[in-house]
Amino acid sequence: MKAGPSQEEVRQHNLGALLRLVHFDGPTSRAVLATRLGLNRSTILGLVGDLAAAGLVREELPQETGRAGRPSLVVRPEPARVHVLAVDLGVERLAAALIGLGGVFLDRRECPWPDGHPQDPARVAAVLAGFAHEMLARAPAGSSCVGVAVAVRGIVRHPDGLVSLTPNMGWKGVDFAGAFADRLRPDLPDVPVLVANEANLGALAEHRRGIGRGSQNLVYLHGEIGIGAGVIIDGELLRGERGYAGEVGHMTVNPYRGRPCGCGARGCLEAEAGERALLEAAGRDGRVTGADAVRSVVTAADRGDVTAREALHRVGDWLGIGIANVANLFDPDLVVLGGTLRDVFLGSAAQVRSQINTNTLAAVRENLRLRVSELGADTVLIGAAELAFSEVLSRPLETLTRISEQRQGPPGPPRDTEPVRTRAD
Amino acid sequence: MKAGPSQEEVRQHNLGALLRLVHFDGPTSRAVLATRLGLNRSTILGLVGDLAAAGLVREELPQETGRAGRPSLVVRPEPARVHVLAVDLGVERLAAALIGLGGVFLDRRECPWPDGHPQDPARVAAVLAGFAHEMLARAPAGSSCVGVAVAVRGIVRHPDGLVSLTPNMGWKGVDFAGAFADRLRPDLPDVPVLVANEANLGALAEHRRGIGRGSQNLVYLHGEIGIGAGVIIDGELLRGERGYAGEVGHMTVNPYRGRPCGCGARGCLEAEAGERALLEAAGRDGRVTGADAVRSVVTAADRGDVTAREALHRVGDWLGIGIANVANLFDPDLVVLGGTLRDVFLGSAAQVRSQINTNTLAAVRENLRLRVSELGADTVLIGAAELAFSEVLSRPLETLTRISEQRQGPPGPPRDTEPVRTRAD
Repeated sequence: MKAGPSQEEVRQHNLGALLRLVHFDGPTSRAVLATRLGLNRSTILGLVGDLAAAGLVREELPQETGRAGRPSLVVRPEPARVHVLAVDLGVERLAAALIGLGGVFLDRRECPWPDGHPQDPARVAAVLAGFAHEMLARAPAGSSCVGVAVAVRGIVRHPDGLVSLTPNMGWKGVDFAGAFADRLRPDLPDVPVLVANEANLGALAEHRRGIGRGSQNLVYLHGEIGIGAGVIIDGELLRGERGYAGEVGHMTVNPYRGRPCGCGARGCLEAEAGERALLEAAGRDGRVTGADAVRSVVTAADRGDVTAREALHRVGDWLGIGIANVANLFDPDLVVLGGTLRDVFLGSAAQVRSQINTNTLAAVRENLRLRVSELGADTVLIGAAELAFSEVLSRPLETLTRISEQRQGPPGPPRDTEPVRTRAD
Repeated sequence: MKAGPSQEEVRQHNLGALLRLVHFDGPTSRAVLATRLGLNRSTILGLVGDLAAAGLVREELPQETGRAGRPSLVVRPEPARVHVLAVDLGVERLAAALIGLGGVFLDRRECPWPDGHPQDPARVAAVLAGFAHEMLARAPAGSSCVGVAVAVRGIVRHPDGLVSLTPNMGWKGVDFAGAFADRLRPDLPDVPVLVANEANLGALAEHRRGIGRGSQNLVYLHGEIGIGAGVIIDGELLRGERGYAGEVGHMTVNPYRGRPCGCGARGCLEAEAGERALLEAAGRDGRVTGADAVRSVVTAADRGDVTAREALHRVGDWLGIGIANVANLFDPDLVVLGGTLRDVFLGSAAQVRSQINTNTLAAVRENLRLRVSELGADTVLIGAAELAFSEVLSRPLETLTRISEQRQGPPGPPRDTEPVRTRAD
């Protein structure tokens, strides 16, 4: 029951709202901004002026519109004024990217995990800080890093980002944000490091930049060895009391006769529909998981391999039951399948849909759409970037002021830059 | 991405915030209001003055404080200026109450359902409008009815309140809000009629006035013939895309060997843990459901009846699995059991807790509390009243102005009234 905002808070809110709009939607005319934000044109003029003076947006002629007459100026986000560092601690690889305002990939690095198990957080942090150092040295002059976010395959406490548990890395109660911030300090002495669960970040990415644009209530299911969910409710990420919401992989669907799960229970969704269940049912070595292994089962099924096809159907049945349960609980208008669930679904869509039809209430499934991820392998990294951008998108000018004060030097003018995509693996 | 509010919107917001605070917490000093709302004392003075002038609050000496010295005035909600009509279409009875600001029961009526199946919505509306007419005639002079809300055992579309399905009444796609508004028109020509699901309203009630006060993330499970859930996330009710969220009763927990469910599927939570499952396992007639039937099984088990005890243990196991799933998905800090699940839990707490320990992730269950409803049989009715109050609590003065204009007469001064509780059944 907080009191309403002051005029200055309203202005900061409006600056953020305008910046978010062009960050997500790209170049937009002032007239459209006024309509979308419900503000009059003189207010828009003032807000655009403030953001342009800070170098966060620029006004320019639009790309070819195909219409006759003099085109009106559009406001576009400036990718070379602020950027973020997004990191993905994937199952098979470490990836890092520098991403500019508007979601432009400025630079990118990835490598396999360093040896050893359980992984030493400090060593992982050192490798990633090395990537960051290289990329930041090549960043556009005058551009500031305004946030760092790390995606983790595991259970992450909100809001402090403590990694409670990551089964595949063997981490328990690890302050990776702190370890990484220490290593980043020479390059980024003051930038906050956020850590979040990979499925939550996947949901954020699909909601803002993927197939979920325009949906306000969606569930993103991310499959790798495990299955996680990120849930968007009324446009916001569901976190729960401590940040652990969305652990759909450990929803019990087959409690008495189910396969044992790594969590110690039996018949969890990820025990029945995860990569290992698929690979073992298909007669493969369940220890060799990953996108290639899953894809080879789907390909074999396509070619008529009966065992592979039956394995896919079995897993598709469980996946459909899991989606039906999630739909009955969250009433989303969209369920997005990402990671290796994308391939599993493409190979078992009939089973998935049949179980959804059986087990979802008619009213709930009436307008429910089921889609695969649009952002592919970059979903999680893009989600991490969006999390890292959240501060500057909420309070643009305050954030820039804080950063420039901490660095004790005024920022230079933005310089043009070409987006690049590099891989170093 | 809406723009921020205007100064007038901020003032309306602050008026609502102050009114909500005293509505939920009762008499509160200006100093505490200032602290809780983060506003300075002169702003509080102005807000209290506006609300007092409208008759919504009054300042008075507090009850005995036990402290020495002159006590400071407290602001308390005025129960005889505005009230709401709350209606509960229960499984066994129809209930209606007039409830004043601050949650004071002013009057109350209830009766068994009229004969016939499926129930005729117009006939049900007529009976309830009769109750409303009697109670409104006895309402304090000068008090206005500012909202009507109806709790339904079924699936209700948001925001229009269309009753999509109520298995026990046989309604499908029924506009009960419209039917009830028609019958209420002679007494309440212009008051909005809201309709909502009973478990959602139970969640609202426990969150605002029951065991869930202070919790921002809770799940309320309501058991009768079916099992429904109301979910509070960050202090707000989860509705989903169309209002159908929380259909936990149709979460599949035993898909291949489960009991058939009324929805057409198999192994839904309510098929395994609902009243019928309990009664049939205990050797009773599964058609005679209700609080008394459930309680008789619990009592028999307490007295050593082995069949009753085993039935409770079996149902407790399924209930525990259901709660574990809900906890893994929503990460609440509190799960509240209401309706007949209250008795089921009291008779099977060991089984419920054991399944939660097995099937909930350690991080999720670490701070999870499990409690029974504090509001008892009135939970749903209180929740309906809170829903009906929501407009006046958001925009107090605007709502009063609208109502007084529509009735073409200025409201009289509030008159003192004694809260009464009557039953007419």
